[in-house]
Amino acid sequence: MNILSVIEKKKKKQELSTEEINFFVNGYTEGVIADYQISALLMAILLNGMSDRETYDMTMAMLHSGDVVDMSALGGVVCDKHSTGGIGDSTTLALAPILACCGVYVAKMSGRGLGFTGGTIDKLESIPDFDTALSEEEFFRTVKKVGCAVIGQTANLAPADKKLYALRDVTGTVDSIPLICGSIMSKKLASGSDTILLDVKYGSGAFMPTKESALELARKMVDIGTRAGKNIGALITDMEQPLSDHVGNSLEVIGIIEVLCGKRNRLYGEIKEVAVRLLQLSGKYDAHSAEEAFCDVVESGKALHKLAEMVTAQHGDASYILHPEKFPLGKKVEVVSDADGFVDKIRADDIGRAVTCLGGGRMKKEDKIDFSVGAVMNVELGSKVKRGDVLCTVYHNGKGLDEAVNLLKNAIHVGDKSPAPHKIAFAYVDKNGVELY
Amino acid sequence: MNILSVIEKKKKKQELSTEEINFFVNGYTEGVIADYQISALLMAILLNGMSDRETYDMTMAMLHSGDVVDMSALGGVVCDKHSTGGIGDSTTLALAPILACCGVYVAKMSGRGLGFTGGTIDKLESIPDFDTALSEEEFFRTVKKVGCAVIGQTANLAPADKKLYALRDVTGTVDSIPLICGSIMSKKLASGSDTILLDVKYGSGAFMPTKESALELARKMVDIGTRAGKNIGALITDMEQPLSDHVGNSLEVIGIIEVLCGKRNRLYGEIKEVAVRLLQLSGKYDAHSAEEAFCDVVESGKALHKLAEMVTAQHGDASYILHPEKFPLGKKVEVVSDADGFVDKIRADDIGRAVTCLGGGRMKKEDKIDFSVGAVMNVELGSKVKRGDVLCTVYHNGKGLDEAVNLLKNAIHVGDKSPAPHKIAFAYVDKNGVELY
Repeated sequence: MNILSVIEKKKKKQELSTEEINFFVNGYTEGVIADYQISALLMAILLNGMSDRETYDMTMAMLHSGDVVDMSALGGVVCDKHSTGGIGDSTTLALAPILACCGVYVAKMSGRGLGFTGGTIDKLESIPDFDTALSEEEFFRTVKKVGCAVIGQTANLAPADKKLYALRDVTGTVDSIPLICGSIMSKKLASGSDTILLDVKYGSGAFMPTKESALELARKMVDIGTRAGKNIGALITDMEQPLSDHVGNSLEVIGIIEVLCGKRNRLYGEIKEVAVRLLQLSGKYDAHSAEEAFCDVVESGKALHKLAEMVTAQHGDASYILHPEKFPLGKKVEVVSDADGFVDKIRADDIGRAVTCLGGGRMKKEDKIDFSVGAVMNVELGSKVKRGDVLCTVYHNGKGLDEAVNLLKNAIHVGDKSPAPHKIAFAYVDKNGVELY
Repeated sequence: MNILSVIEKKKKKQELSTEEINFFVNGYTEGVIADYQISALLMAILLNGMSDRETYDMTMAMLHSGDVVDMSALGGVVCDKHSTGGIGDSTTLALAPILACCGVYVAKMSGRGLGFTGGTIDKLESIPDFDTALSEEEFFRTVKKVGCAVIGQTANLAPADKKLYALRDVTGTVDSIPLICGSIMSKKLASGSDTILLDVKYGSGAFMPTKESALELARKMVDIGTRAGKNIGALITDMEQPLSDHVGNSLEVIGIIEVLCGKRNRLYGEIKEVAVRLLQLSGKYDAHSAEEAFCDVVESGKALHKLAEMVTAQHGDASYILHPEKFPLGKKVEVVSDADGFVDKIRADDIGRAVTCLGGGRMKKEDKIDFSVGAVMNVELGSKVKRGDVLCTVYHNGKGLDEAVNLLKNAIHVGDKSPAPHKIAFAYVDKNGVELY
């Protein structure tokens, strides 16, 4: 077999065999096939597509390029949730304790953020002494005892994806449904959970520009997961505004604590939606009992105390969870509206950029994150505002303030008319099909 | 400007601006843009195409990446002929003296062969002492005095093409009409002739698989040449059999001498077609006077003596031209037919491969060529043969004989029915349009 004949086939829109797919994934991972040949193949895949069978085979080849975590020793359902990238997406911090309280495990290996704000790991590290680098043994012991734990990724999961993604990123071959499928699903399948909920975003700034393309991606990923023996579903959600009204690292932890203390905002709605879906997917609950269980563990404060328990188990100072006012924050500056009207557009990606400007995210891997900066939104889509009303509050330590304020001002648009009412999700997909909201 | 945005545009089937085309051609030639980015772009161009304007701009950018030969000092019409690759294509050796006798110059810088048989330069070097490395000054002096000269390429013509072609060759991006156009036309325009005839081959083994694609390629190249101020035309011919019944290096020189001595075979027909078209394109002849001039210089022996004169001027032993029996040849082996019937298929590319096996072509740049080996066809398409009849004669020195004989046996197919009569050319294209044969 040689790579040229594989490129030729895909160029002619022919289906690649399992052997051909294994050949190019393994050959590239092992450094036997050159970058310039794989990038030509990736462009041919992007333009000519891949069948479901090809996409599945590619995902499997990428999955088996590295470690596959085995969680069977936990002896229970292990849940995971993956988002295709959202601003202010700190839901894992709430989902882990909520699901643990409901009797399913969450054993999450998370990445650090690059580009916009921090990742889940960065947010957790804003809690003093919180240890995201537990040994594998301590990690599993914590999950078994507490029900949940979140650490940084140490295992060598899907190295083929790492290499392929780096190449896609510099060759204009990111926005291909089969390639995105392979990338996300190889890592998800490698991380060992048996019950998975995907949150597929669409809209400007998301991988998928339209509802339709997001739905297609979701369907393909659910198909791959189902074929791989997982309980898997996907929500299709838009990126029209940040998930949380708190954007930043410590701020997002505070936002989560507020939800676990009873705040009923958009973030609460999203967390509920995801948790209820995951509980059903786990097979332990039906729609009704899942919702009941969710409401019970949140309203009783059990979930908040479970979060504190997890923080303690991971050597962090749990007093911050029970007293979030302890989190040090930057100086406050308010961004006010220039006009009367309604908030009719919120550019979530620019809010992420603003927080990165302030030092709350990384541009390069080596960058240090300032946990104390960020923004808290005072408005959401549809809010009625008057000139001079506060749109959001910026927390800063001097760095990048002007640029951040400018970005935020432009990110929150005030117009004459109230926008159409806005749902959290547009559709849900699992092996039974598509459910529109 | 950055290469990612150029890739994105072509990926979305948008037209690249002149600036964007100059940017990627120059950036790649200068080594500023990476191989893996250009190969992704080449695949996007192959699959999404290029407008005539884009193709012209790319050709010009490639042309100006290196030297442009100036032949204006010759003070006359300078003709050139380019073939997109044929087996047994030694027509330059006859065209140069014929055209010189008709009062137009041929100042040809030729390449060496790679893959199948030798190139024009290799064939000429089979004439003892023939110097294909004249200085530029001596080259022009010879052209001015004799009317023609053929040397190896020394000028740095279209280095962008060299780099791009090397990349296309290993990334499955050869068979793209705009890319082929740019490659051929940038070199042709750089080599300084003002009157150009292109011979565009189609069929299995050729760049262009079908008549239609060959015609499209020819039209685009003629369009580019015309816009660049050249007198240019293109013949569309098939590769259904080798051009010459002699395939090899010394053997092809012998085949040309036979034509110049009066043999009226397929090679003669092709040479006449090309010569008459070039004479008309030069503006010095009309259809009738061109044919008359051609017949005169061939039948009178003037062209044969002009070839001898060129060989002498290039320090070669012209006695070989007048006494071709002096060329040393390998031992003879005959390939005979296994069946009665008609020759209904001749795979020209396998005949080229067979001669390469014998040592008559290069697999690597460094390979030495054995001038004395090759094959002489006894049959052509449509020949009636009996079992035991000689199909071709192999000249060998032991090396690769079995494989060559095997290839030749399979390359010449004998069937029950005579194939449809076979024309040399299918169409001719110039600025006035398409003429079907």
